Amino acid sequence: MIKPLGDRVVLEAVEKEETTASGIVLPETAKEKPQEGRVIAVGTGRYENGQKVALEVNEGDRVIFSKYAGTEVKVGDKEYLILRESDILAVVD
Amino acid sequence: MIKPLGDRVVLEAVEKEETTASGIVLPETAKEKPQEGRVIAVGTGRYENGQKVALEVNEGDRVIFSKYAGTEVKVGDKEYLILRESDILAVVD
Amino acid sequence: MIKPLGDRVVLEAVEKEETTASGIVLPETAKEKPQEGRVIAVGTGRYENGQKVALEVNEGDRVIFSKYAGTEVKVGDKEYLILRESDILAVVD
Amino acid sequence: MIKPLGDRVVLEAVEKEETTASGIVLPETAKEKPQEGRVIAVGTGRYENGQKVALEVNEGDRVIFSKYAGTEVKVGDKEYLILRESDILAVVD
Amino acid sequence: MIKPLGDRVVLEAVEKEETTASGIVLPETAKEKPQEGRVIAVGTGRYENGQKVALEVNEGDRVIFSKYAGTEVKVGDKEYLILRESDILAVVD
Amino acid sequence: MIKPLGDRVVLEAVEKEETTASGIVLPETAKEKPQEGRVIAVGTGRYENGQKVALEVNEGDRVIFSKYAGTEVKVGDKEYLILRESDILAVVD
Amino acid sequence: MIKPLGDRVVLEAVEKEETTASGIVLPETAKEKPQEGRVIAVGTGRYENGQKVALEVNEGDRVIFSKYAGTEVKVGDKEYLILRESDILAVVD
Repeated sequence: MIKPLGDRVVLEAVEKEETTASGIVLPETAKEKPQEGRVIAVGTGRYENGQKVALEVNEGDRVIFSKYAGTEVKVGDKEYLILRESDILAVVD
Repeated sequence: MIKPLGDRVVLEAVEKEETTASGIVLPETAKEKPQEGRVIAVGTGRYENGQKVALEVNEGDRVIFSKYAGTEVKVGDKEYLILRESDILAVVD
Repeated sequence: MIKPLGDRVVLEAVEKEETTASGIVLPETAKEKPQEGRVIAVGTGRYENGQKVALEVNEGDRVIFSKYAGTEVKVGDKEYLILRESDILAVVD
Repeated sequence: MIKPLGDRVVLEAVEKEETTASGIVLPETAKEKPQEGRVIAVGTGRYENGQKVALEVNEGDRVIFSKYAGTEVKVGDKEYLILRESDILAVVD
Repeated sequence: MIKPLGDRVVLEAVEKEETTASGIVLPETAKEKPQEGRVIAVGTGRYENGQKVALEVNEGDRVIFSKYAGTEVKVGDKEYLILRESDILAVVD
Repeated sequence: MIKPLGDRVVLEAVEKEETTASGIVLPETAKEKPQEGRVIAVGTGRYENGQKVALEVNEGDRVIFSKYAGTEVKVGDKEYLILRESDILAVVD
Repeated sequence: MIKPLGDRVVLEAVEKEETTASGIVLPETAKEKPQEGRVIAVGTGRYENGQKVALEVNEGDRVIFSKYAGTEVKVGDKEYLILRESDILAVVD
């Protein structure tokens, strides 16, 4: 299990079937780095003026995040992205 | 549906009929990047000294924003711009 | 109508009759970029330590501002400058 | 009249009779940029932790300021320097 | 004994058996710099708005930290990494 | 008289008899820029979280300061250094 | 006597017998710059949100500090390092 600290969030990549305009399914290496992920774990919160405040995102949320934000880590066989909540732009339903 | 976090705002582009001085309607690629948008969704607010404060803009507002601000995202077929409220300069009625 | 957000102010340029030492009225392009403007609209205020504080300038004030500050925008046929109040140096009576 | 905003101060240059070691009075262009000025007007004050605090300098004070600080402005025929009080180092009696 | 100050944490490296895809165990120099460590000691805490707050990690925790963060020190024969808690991304169970 | 503002301090240089290892007294230009000075005047204090706090140094203190800190000014025939108290490292008795 | 200001600390170098792997004692110039020191004097403390807080280190503590941190000063014949407490990583018992 992986428990992020403070205002950090752990994401796993969301696989998108990616098809070009001409209908060809692209192999992995030709795809753009994904900007969407699913929340696996959230930190205990962050401090605002001395008070601890819970994060806005929840486990299971599908989110859009800033390209290049965060740190990729590998725990066991799985790859995750750990970033600060402030690098998450929006939740997508 | 797309729900921005914190002080972020989701905009969609506002199409302007764009005509040159000589009256020719320009094709898309010859236009300047628009600085106007319509608010699609607003975040839950931002913290000021430990208190959560609602954003000033509202859904449906037509706004002027700083060129190059924000991040372009694609949700389904539609393109949006997600930016912080502080990158919005003014509301235009 | 244009309503600036927060601590922002909308200015319109103040035309100065500009004459060189030799008495020749200069055409537009030979003039220096003006540093004076008239306040058209003021934002709702800014936060100081969690309290909202009204701006110091008022609609109609003639002000001196920092060269290159702010963003030029066009609303309808008119050109405005939107800047933060902190880029305004002084009010001139 | 010129009224600076917030923590800003308006200065006018203090003319110093400037003589070289050999006793020659230097023409204007050979002088160093002066670092002294007289306070013409002071802003309404600045915020410290949410409370408005009056400036330390007063109209008429002779002050030493950081070289290159501030913005030179011309109001009517007169030239002034507008700077933040924090760019003023000391009052000279 | 080593007692970190404030929000600092002392880590020791966690050895991972590192095997390439082809099954060869790599000698030390061919390994990537590890991003995992075990907490040896934690500082007395950090200040949030004037109140001292205990750190989130505890002695014995296995943690993931930002590559290149912190300072390597040698006390006696042993090598440690001292970093700020904010450079620790997550605790791994 | 020279009265520094806020957290600023006025120093005068402390002359040190400077002798090389071989016992030769160095002429002025061969000396290192001094890092010691005597406090001539102290500002009214600085703000810490909205409260004005007196400076730690007093008139007459002999202090060590950061090389290159501050601004050299000339008042009448005398040269002073005006710096922020935070550029003073220690008082030497 | 040397009294550091605020959050500053005065250290003296801790001499380590330094021997290479082959058992040769290195002359002074071949050694690495030491990262350990002994606390000679501590400042009066630092402000956290308007309250003065005592430093964590005490006179006599043996400490590890960031390489290149602080300023080397010479008082009389002795050399000291003056640094901020935040540049001290840990106390070693």
